[in-house]
Amino acid sequence: MDLRSAFDTPTPAVVLAEGAFGGMAGKTANGVVMHSELFEVGAVVDSDQAGRSAADVLDRPEVGDVPVVESMTAALEATPDAEALVIGVAPAGGALPEEWVDDIREAMRAGCDVVSGLHVFLSERDDWVDLADECGVRLFDVRKPPADDDLRVADGRVDDIDADVVLTVGTDCAVGKRTTTFELYRAAQRAGIDAGWVATGQTGIMVGAHRGTVVDRVPADFTAGVVEDNVAAVGADHDLVFVEGQGALTHRAYSGVTLALLHGAWPDAVVLVDDPDREGRTHFDRFPIRGVDVERDLVEGLSEAQVAALSTWGDPATEGEQHGLPTANVYHDDGPEALLDAVMEAL
Amino acid sequence: MDLRSAFDTPTPAVVLAEGAFGGMAGKTANGVVMHSELFEVGAVVDSDQAGRSAADVLDRPEVGDVPVVESMTAALEATPDAEALVIGVAPAGGALPEEWVDDIREAMRAGCDVVSGLHVFLSERDDWVDLADECGVRLFDVRKPPADDDLRVADGRVDDIDADVVLTVGTDCAVGKRTTTFELYRAAQRAGIDAGWVATGQTGIMVGAHRGTVVDRVPADFTAGVVEDNVAAVGADHDLVFVEGQGALTHRAYSGVTLALLHGAWPDAVVLVDDPDREGRTHFDRFPIRGVDVERDLVEGLSEAQVAALSTWGDPATEGEQHGLPTANVYHDDGPEALLDAVMEAL
Repeated sequence: MDLRSAFDTPTPAVVLAEGAFGGMAGKTANGVVMHSELFEVGAVVDSDQAGRSAADVLDRPEVGDVPVVESMTAALEATPDAEALVIGVAPAGGALPEEWVDDIREAMRAGCDVVSGLHVFLSERDDWVDLADECGVRLFDVRKPPADDDLRVADGRVDDIDADVVLTVGTDCAVGKRTTTFELYRAAQRAGIDAGWVATGQTGIMVGAHRGTVVDRVPADFTAGVVEDNVAAVGADHDLVFVEGQGALTHRAYSGVTLALLHGAWPDAVVLVDDPDREGRTHFDRFPIRGVDVERDLVEGLSEAQVAALSTWGDPATEGEQHGLPTANVYHDDGPEALLDAVMEAL
Repeated sequence: MDLRSAFDTPTPAVVLAEGAFGGMAGKTANGVVMHSELFEVGAVVDSDQAGRSAADVLDRPEVGDVPVVESMTAALEATPDAEALVIGVAPAGGALPEEWVDDIREAMRAGCDVVSGLHVFLSERDDWVDLADECGVRLFDVRKPPADDDLRVADGRVDDIDADVVLTVGTDCAVGKRTTTFELYRAAQRAGIDAGWVATGQTGIMVGAHRGTVVDRVPADFTAGVVEDNVAAVGADHDLVFVEGQGALTHRAYSGVTLALLHGAWPDAVVLVDDPDREGRTHFDRFPIRGVDVERDLVEGLSEAQVAALSTWGDPATEGEQHGLPTANVYHDDGPEALLDAVMEAL
């Protein structure tokens, strides 16, 4: 069952983000607290930040009065109606720390479904499945790829859908593609457009995308096909489909995924996402950032899509003039609206 | 254990190619019979072609007097010293026909290791493992991806190797990339150059590439890393590394794999491979072939490699003039030498 069907009304939840809330390693937890349409977060577990509010840690006043607490016990006390635990951080190295095991068990015994972004799949381990049965709760492993029988090679069927498709493509990883996609979707909703969106990473799925698959775990031959299936499904129900991109076409580690998304989604328009202050690729010293103009030429050379706009972390006036593109910063007031206007103009 | 280490002297073998020898579905069997440095093929099982010689079926006189026979029993009689069975065709739909099960068992009981290109992995099934133990033979599943612990994201370490790297990129699938790569490697050997090669599909591995991984089964995030590892390993032992490409940068189903190979191998030179008579993509009616000039621009836009030459199935003079590239047909006399000369000129 996909997550949006499983949590079809906003569900009271606690978030586990131990040691990571507010930072890069906690980006899934941060996204769920800020944006989820599936979960009403009652508390965040992170002993490093305990005593502060989520709004304060994230510097986002609109998040409201969500406490960050030191333990699962405290989180469950602060959220007596919790029906879900969202694991919004993955331990470095992959193995599950013993304290987390205790925390997850405690939440399950309190009646919480588990929505996990861990690399290890709880639903494939007998001890976790047995405990879930005993507690009457469900286990969702968001990173788990589709079963082999559900995978297929792309064949272009996405070209038949009536909806317009808009893909985000970055100049680097972790540069705001998921946020840009989500803000475009929300701006379209506010404008009365029947829009849906497709996630390609775990945060987007947990936030409530209409369909989503963590594409980086899909065998390479099927990546474009998975995206095509998701876009076709959302496009059947909506007039406009936003698709979360991954990586960059010039990022040698992840470019294959980026191109599979461009060719699987086969968008009508692309929004480039850039942080002009970033000087090198995070974790990849050898691979230079090539910038907006190079990525734009590659997108347009590799597809029939027009690059319709630039989503920047910088000053939109400066960046727009430099690159000759309609440009907005989605963190500014009316930024999402300005970006959406540029997209609609291009469609 | 990799296949080249497991079969370090040419090993007498029988090839199972039932219903497919000589055709597209039998391309692995065809390649092994024509090119393998690991196996001396004594007979090919294909009841449709029984009674002919492999040289006749393949229209390649240099293959010599290898009989095509109607049964495994006949193949083993024709090859009394057989030590390996190569399964060079995969059944449509994936399931293993009962007759093939009997054939494989018969070869194992006769003392043959099994080198399998099947989608199902024999080495993961208890009944096959038990029979292999009983018979004292080994099972090699060539399509099996590396274990998760052996996978990593590319980081650019291939840039440190001293060897030159040459990648083939196609204008379509099944257009001669493996053959071109192999013929370049053999021409380099004949010219006294210390060359090795990296396979990215099952045929190349069975033919005897120095390293190889069936990349289409590797999770998308690790595809570039796997290729990088293989290129770095072969580059440590040789002066020149040829890398078998996959797909085409404009082939929407497989382009992600193509780009992961370009960015993982990060070649010094690229050889484009084209069939000028092909009018549409095999099995992909919706995706047009874009041609040599488009692929060349994309290769050079997405990498620092120069497109050094064109390997064509057509007339090299005509194609070379049309595209402005040194061009050869590796099926013509001295074709491989001409292609190698163009590559060496570019390095």
